[in-house]
Amino acid sequence: GVEKFPKERIAEDMVPGLAIGLAWTRVGGDILYIESSLSEGKGKLILTGNLGDVMKESATTALSYIKANADKLNISKENLEKFDVHIHVPEGAIPKDGPSAGITMLTALVSAFKGKAMKKNLAMTGEITLRGKVLPVGGIKEKVLAAKRSGVDTIILCADNRRHVEEIDPRYIGGVEFIYVERMHEVLHYALGIETF
Amino acid sequence: GVEKFPKERIAEDMVPGLAIGLAWTRVGGDILYIESSLSEGKGKLILTGNLGDVMKESATTALSYIKANADKLNISKENLEKFDVHIHVPEGAIPKDGPSAGITMLTALVSAFKGKAMKKNLAMTGEITLRGKVLPVGGIKEKVLAAKRSGVDTIILCADNRRHVEEIDPRYIGGVEFIYVERMHEVLHYALGIETF
Amino acid sequence: GVEKFPKERIAEDMVPGLAIGLAWTRVGGDILYIESSLSEGKGKLILTGNLGDVMKESATTALSYIKANADKLNISKENLEKFDVHIHVPEGAIPKDGPSAGITMLTALVSAFKGKAMKKNLAMTGEITLRGKVLPVGGIKEKVLAAKRSGVDTIILCADNRRHVEEIDPRYIGGVEFIYVERMHEVLHYALGIETF
Amino acid sequence: GVEKFPKERIAEDMVPGLAIGLAWTRVGGDILYIESSLSEGKGKLILTGNLGDVMKESATTALSYIKANADKLNISKENLEKFDVHIHVPEGAIPKDGPSAGITMLTALVSAFKGKAMKKNLAMTGEITLRGKVLPVGGIKEKVLAAKRSGVDTIILCADNRRHVEEIDPRYIGGVEFIYVERMHEVLHYALGIETF
Amino acid sequence: GVEKFPKERIAEDMVPGLAIGLAWTRVGGDILYIESSLSEGKGKLILTGNLGDVMKESATTALSYIKANADKLNISKENLEKFDVHIHVPEGAIPKDGPSAGITMLTALVSAFKGKAMKKNLAMTGEITLRGKVLPVGGIKEKVLAAKRSGVDTIILCADNRRHVEEIDPRYIGGVEFIYVERMHEVLHYALGIETF
Amino acid sequence: GVEKFPKERIAEDMVPGLAIGLAWTRVGGDILYIESSLSEGKGKLILTGNLGDVMKESATTALSYIKANADKLNISKENLEKFDVHIHVPEGAIPKDGPSAGITMLTALVSAFKGKAMKKNLAMTGEITLRGKVLPVGGIKEKVLAAKRSGVDTIILCADNRRHVEEIDPRYIGGVEFIYVERMHEVLHYALGIETF
Ligand SMILES: [Ca+2]
Ligand SMILES: [Ca+2]
Ligand SMILES: [Ca+2]
Ligand SMILES: [Ca+2]
Ligand SMILES: [Ca+2]
Ligand SMILES: [Ca+2]
Ligand SMILES: [Ca+2]
Ligand SMILES: [Ca+2]
Ligand SMILES: [Ca+2]
Ligand SMILES: [Ca+2]
Ligand SMILES: [Ca+2]
Ligand SMILES: [Ca+2]
Repeated sequence: GVEKFPKERIAEDMVPGLAIGLAWTRVGGDILYIESSLSEGKGKLILTGNLGDVMKESATTALSYIKANADKLNISKENLEKFDVHIHVPEGAIPKDGPSAGITMLTALVSAFKGKAMKKNLAMTGEITLRGKVLPVGGIKEKVLAAKRSGVDTIILCADNRRHVEEIDPRYIGGVEFIYVERMHEVLHYALGIETF
Repeated sequence: GVEKFPKERIAEDMVPGLAIGLAWTRVGGDILYIESSLSEGKGKLILTGNLGDVMKESATTALSYIKANADKLNISKENLEKFDVHIHVPEGAIPKDGPSAGITMLTALVSAFKGKAMKKNLAMTGEITLRGKVLPVGGIKEKVLAAKRSGVDTIILCADNRRHVEEIDPRYIGGVEFIYVERMHEVLHYALGIETF
Repeated sequence: GVEKFPKERIAEDMVPGLAIGLAWTRVGGDILYIESSLSEGKGKLILTGNLGDVMKESATTALSYIKANADKLNISKENLEKFDVHIHVPEGAIPKDGPSAGITMLTALVSAFKGKAMKKNLAMTGEITLRGKVLPVGGIKEKVLAAKRSGVDTIILCADNRRHVEEIDPRYIGGVEFIYVERMHEVLHYALGIETF
Repeated sequence: GVEKFPKERIAEDMVPGLAIGLAWTRVGGDILYIESSLSEGKGKLILTGNLGDVMKESATTALSYIKANADKLNISKENLEKFDVHIHVPEGAIPKDGPSAGITMLTALVSAFKGKAMKKNLAMTGEITLRGKVLPVGGIKEKVLAAKRSGVDTIILCADNRRHVEEIDPRYIGGVEFIYVERMHEVLHYALGIETF
Repeated sequence: GVEKFPKERIAEDMVPGLAIGLAWTRVGGDILYIESSLSEGKGKLILTGNLGDVMKESATTALSYIKANADKLNISKENLEKFDVHIHVPEGAIPKDGPSAGITMLTALVSAFKGKAMKKNLAMTGEITLRGKVLPVGGIKEKVLAAKRSGVDTIILCADNRRHVEEIDPRYIGGVEFIYVERMHEVLHYALGIETF
Repeated sequence: GVEKFPKERIAEDMVPGLAIGLAWTRVGGDILYIESSLSEGKGKLILTGNLGDVMKESATTALSYIKANADKLNISKENLEKFDVHIHVPEGAIPKDGPSAGITMLTALVSAFKGKAMKKNLAMTGEITLRGKVLPVGGIKEKVLAAKRSGVDTIILCADNRRHVEEIDPRYIGGVEFIYVERMHEVLHYALGIETF
């Protein structure tokens, strides 16, 4: 049994391991928190939060991207091997799926491994690939409106999603800045201030 | 085959590893015991009691939170690695699911690792997150009434559940104290007397 | 294909690892043998006999209880680690489930680890918990009548099941002694003569 | 696609690891070959031949019985640990299930570990238990008639199955000897000439 | 999406690890290639090609036969332990099942371990057992006609399948030689020129 | 929720680990990117991108081919053991299956292990086998037209697919070069410039 709660404001307290994405649900867009934490272990990836297979694959792909680019990201291979990584997506009663949380999961993981918090009032949505390209995703209008309502002031999107933003009446999204990216390292640059190239 | 038994009074004998939650079933609210025990092993998590996937994920998340905050909780990493942890939820004939036992599972695990019993006549309900935030849950009215009937005198809830308590006729819950929390360390403070920050 | 066989008398030859419970089937109550054996291994638990998930969880819980109470039970941790434990419930063609064999499984396991046979003409039924409490179960009337017919002279039950026995016409259960318990160590005391506290 | 083949005569060439049971199929009784072989490994049990879960559990139980009685059977624990055991039931296109091949599987395994072939023209059917008791099984009439047709001259059965044999018209089973057993070591005595007690 | 391709001629280029069987499909008989390869590993068996459970069990049984008869086959146990074995059955879009590829899988595996190619223009079909007996299979007429059409000049079959060949009009199978076998070592003798006894 | 995006041009930026295939979907042909990356590990194969079992088997087969031909490919066995290999097929919301990506997966893997990028403006489609033969696949017309539209100038196909290309009106595929192959090493020669024989 799950009751409805009023729309939440975006979190003020950004901590390492936390990243903020945007979800597209049956009842509109919503803020999507991705939490990650490290604990001593053997490089295992633990995924919770009622996630579907495609969303789990996004997390696996994000971790492989980090491993394959560990040098550029200045993340030590020792840490990748000696920590277990847990990614949790809160509100466990709600099933979640799809590839659009990819860049958010990547950001959460890099944030955890680097111990660096994501910028405040920022949200993002986009599919990731293993070679570092960001792909466009659906539900842009609903996601952007939900972000605006929640207090988000900056949104990272795939460049191929620009035309979906341009279809939204500008009066509804005044004051929101859009950052269009093509590559995953751009996301990490804007969200975490990390320079990889 | 399972027969009905009369409503039970809350347990008098609190021991380390035991925590008391509140469940919301088809026939109303109920007391929910969460038991945990440690035995020499390899850090494995064993979950029994006819638990659904979401409830199992709560347990996994609680354990990751403890591992990631082991220093603050003053729980040795050696113990986290050398013990297997078993969480059992009694009344195995009844399927149980949902995220609302999260703070109860966390309390049971910390109680087991610290060897410290939870306060008597206390019950709780709330979803946990990996970053330590407590989320509101459903079925508050039924849970609170069941707690009162069973002899509970203090209930820990998420601050976002306060308005659900305020909708209950005060005549039915006289003498029950409500503690509203936002963070998981507050739960551990009230339930176990543990200071983490 | 399975044929019916005439109601069996309770076994005369109690050996270490064997315990006798009571089952509640569609056609009435029945004697339920729980067999366990140890063999050199790595502490693995093997469960056979067409057991449902809830019954398997009872076995897992019984083993965790033994591990967590190894000192009190005077069972060496070395033995718990170096033996594989097999629990088999005969009559493999018949599916079995439910938590009511819990105290019988616990008794069978402790009997195997201690090398001590259970008392003759004794049977039991009750759910176990991880913290050592015995919970009431259903089907008491059918189970007790089947026990009487099979030659059982002593039955261990949860104290909360006393009222279900008192509802049975005394003429049908003359000569049967009932032992009502609240804790699992009481079961081990009566069935195996083991003192743990 | 599977075609019918004429009823086969029982195998003349008994080798270590091979045992002959009796099956009860939709179209009557049949000879059931149980094959086992050992190969260097780690004590793993491999089961093939389109076996259902109950039949697989019989094999697991047979192996545990052998492990728990290794001393009496004069089978070295080193061999039990260093060999993988494969049990295959030929005619892979036909699904097989039920507990009645238990004593045949036990015989096949002991035959393999002892390197001793089973007696010729012998067949058997009966459920096994972990404590060494043989239980009665169904389909006796069909199984016995199929055994007779195939050239079997001796059949091992559970003592509780005697009355099912006595219901068969003696004219159909002239010349067949029945050995009724209560314990698994009796099976090994008659089939393999092994003395365990 | 899979299109039809014209009936293929049997492969000219036999290499170690490749064996040729006969399949029985909804649209008639067909040539069935079984490929196997070894790579440094830990004795793992990898099965691909859209295989059903029964066909996978044939492969497992073939490998156990080789392990149990390694000495006779002059295959070193070191090689059996240090190589992973992959069996692939091409045309991955087509589901395949049944036990009739057993002798072909055995031949492919022995061919790979011995580094010896199978004879050209030979095909085979037959179920294997763990003790080395070859069992008859179905679909003989369709398989034999497909073999003839594809250029096969020699076919290995179980002796119990002889009568199915004799039911085929001889005009359709002129020039094809049939080799009837009872034991698996005969297959290896004819197909690979290996003497094991 | 997944929206349509305009037909993409083939990628300009070929990097090691990336190969370009052709897919046949319900709405016509499409470019199919296969990405692979290596990270320190234990030779594990990770497959993501919403892949069906047959497509996963293609990847397993490609990796076994590489392992069995490591010497010819001049790929060190140490690298095959010490790296985990991840193959991801982007656009995770779209289920993908079938064997036709086989040669593309092989090319992606060899490209990753050799650190050598595939030629630009090249695409391919074909099933692989364990022994190195390329098999024809379906949907050639749709795949070729999609390749042409996307800017592909060279397509590698199985020789048995030549007749399907010859059925396409030449006006639609002017300027596209077709390379017909029979063996997997030819693919690696044309796509990566690797000589293996
Ligand atoms: Ca929300
Ligand atoms: Ca997102
Ligand atoms: Ca209750
Ligand atoms: Ca609760
Ligand atoms: Ca019975
Ligand atoms: Ca019982
Ligand atoms: Ca038969
Ligand atoms: Ca049998
Ligand atoms: Ca074919
Ligand atoms: Ca075949
Ligand atoms: Ca596309
Ligand atoms: Ca392709």
